[in-house]
Amino acid sequence: MKFSILFGGLSWEHEISIVSAISLKKVLGEKNVEGFIFLDSSHRFYLIPSESMKSTFFSSGEYKKCKELYVGIGSFFSQGLLKKKSIPLGIVINLIHGADGEDGTLASILDFYKIPFIGPRLEGCVLSFNKYLTKLYAKERGIKMLPFEMLQKHSPRKINGEFPLIVKPSRLGSSIGVSVIYSSDEISYAIDSAFEFDKEIIIEPFIKGVKEYNLAGCKIADGNNSDDEYIFSIIEEPQKKDLLDFENKYLDFSRTEQVRKADISEDLEKKIKDAFKKIYVNKFEGALIRCDFFVIEDEVYLNEINPIPGSGANYLFDNFLNTLLELSSYLPKKEAIKISYQYIDKIQRAKGK
Amino acid sequence: MKFSILFGGLSWEHEISIVSAISLKKVLGEKNVEGFIFLDSSHRFYLIPSESMKSTFFSSGEYKKCKELYVGIGSFFSQGLLKKKSIPLGIVINLIHGADGEDGTLASILDFYKIPFIGPRLEGCVLSFNKYLTKLYAKERGIKMLPFEMLQKHSPRKINGEFPLIVKPSRLGSSIGVSVIYSSDEISYAIDSAFEFDKEIIIEPFIKGVKEYNLAGCKIADGNNSDDEYIFSIIEEPQKKDLLDFENKYLDFSRTEQVRKADISEDLEKKIKDAFKKIYVNKFEGALIRCDFFVIEDEVYLNEINPIPGSGANYLFDNFLNTLLELSSYLPKKEAIKISYQYIDKIQRAKGK
Repeated sequence: MKFSILFGGLSWEHEISIVSAISLKKVLGEKNVEGFIFLDSSHRFYLIPSESMKSTFFSSGEYKKCKELYVGIGSFFSQGLLKKKSIPLGIVINLIHGADGEDGTLASILDFYKIPFIGPRLEGCVLSFNKYLTKLYAKERGIKMLPFEMLQKHSPRKINGEFPLIVKPSRLGSSIGVSVIYSSDEISYAIDSAFEFDKEIIIEPFIKGVKEYNLAGCKIADGNNSDDEYIFSIIEEPQKKDLLDFENKYLDFSRTEQVRKADISEDLEKKIKDAFKKIYVNKFEGALIRCDFFVIEDEVYLNEINPIPGSGANYLFDNFLNTLLELSSYLPKKEAIKISYQYIDKIQRAKGK
Repeated sequence: MKFSILFGGLSWEHEISIVSAISLKKVLGEKNVEGFIFLDSSHRFYLIPSESMKSTFFSSGEYKKCKELYVGIGSFFSQGLLKKKSIPLGIVINLIHGADGEDGTLASILDFYKIPFIGPRLEGCVLSFNKYLTKLYAKERGIKMLPFEMLQKHSPRKINGEFPLIVKPSRLGSSIGVSVIYSSDEISYAIDSAFEFDKEIIIEPFIKGVKEYNLAGCKIADGNNSDDEYIFSIIEEPQKKDLLDFENKYLDFSRTEQVRKADISEDLEKKIKDAFKKIYVNKFEGALIRCDFFVIEDEVYLNEINPIPGSGANYLFDNFLNTLLELSSYLPKKEAIKISYQYIDKIQRAKGK
């Protein structure tokens, strides 16, 4: 079984996706990759030869000389002189970070055209891409999250929390539009900055030096949701920074070296895995996701869900290729829908009487 | 300005969408419709001539002789001998009820290809199509809903509510898989039936004879969310039935005759409109939706959100054509995203040193 890597997208994380795809090529090995499909910012797809998978090939615009692809039922197609021709296609790995990839757009398109893919499906995308909806979802699943306020453009700007606070657009994966504010003088500017990127923003406490732990994984069975139905990564304690800026985040997306397991108690590890499973089940099947947690006074809080983590979070797994292969045989199937015309037929029969 | 009507879809409500489209043709008048685009159950699009808009044209499979269409950037295209040709396209009205139309799939596709359309966008779709997510969303927006339990396939089947209860799949728009149960003997069968259609089901109290009121509308401005930014329909008190079965629901989708305004107090009308606005804002812009409410002891409860109501809920509006025209000039725009290659460029410069 081979994989096709879908990357790029019209997103603030466009170039990060390119870096991610280049890293994944290295991790999976060329022989396991059937093709590289680049989505450019005008929403055109291109088939990229393996040897052209270099970042400047995209930044220079050279990719435009490659074969343009069109998505259709069951595959991607190139336009021949007289007819469309499907390309060889492996299981598609959706590696488009941010908009297009994580917001549910490509999940919809791939599902609609019956193209098997690894990546979050529609509902999981919407619940993780929008931080406000993540809050509602996690809370209902019994997972703690930091308290928050959501503001819309017309909302009154009365903020109740104690400083420092963090202000962020609801729907951006990267750190764009995010500010940490230490006093009420800074509120107005921070809110305006966040509203430049979204019509809905989140304000929550900023806890300096909070303990952070990341866990990635995927579900590869359909039973009682026990631990053995999952492939879990190691739990990582990421490098502490006040706020991971865009540049550091970028470095994160090109990681291919394995990291060290966090030094935590078995009890905490169990709590983190339990929270992960509650988030995952019924909403993220078919995807390898990373959940980022805070631990405050021994309690686990969800910080955010990364439904398409940088370079697939490969560096957290012992055997990443094998994880993807296992996941490939557990991609969710849509419930079968039978089309009938019973009411139309009934009316026609009634008319005929 | 003209409209193109998109209907059909791979959904349990496939034939209902056909009926809905035929009704809408009648309501809008042929001169206002640019074209009819049918999505069949294999996810192929066809351009249907106005004179063929009869239900048997679809149930007989005759539609397959029509021109097949492909969706692409900015339009739908037919495949000519040598190249693709775009068809004349008005503002698309997404009239696909149930899966494909209401679950966010077509919203994603139309948005991705930059095709202007009337209909719910991705987030609104996901929040209204899944009744469990509707509960979380409405609750957070401060709207009352009946208490509920959500079961997944592996959940213990311990039910806490008092009979009668209603059991329904989370994600079906019609009454398929829905049961009202009056005693514990019936629980197991009802749950199994619902699980045939979804992997997640909802159980809530069934209140016989509860007062129901429906309100449809759309937002046509971007300000402080006051009443005058909306076009509201009249509030209707729908025909009472224990449970609107599929056949009655079908009749509902072919309605074109105006109905009478419900006889309610100004105060209740205000409460219903306020609830509608809280649900609508920031999640349903660009769509004409219908919210169905219960009123219990003078309190307003949301029953469900219909993001694509049958035949557009045209029968609730004084001037339906005008409502769609107004809405057309207020379709949401995606936030502009700038693609840059600053980090790739930086790394390249660093390498060059």
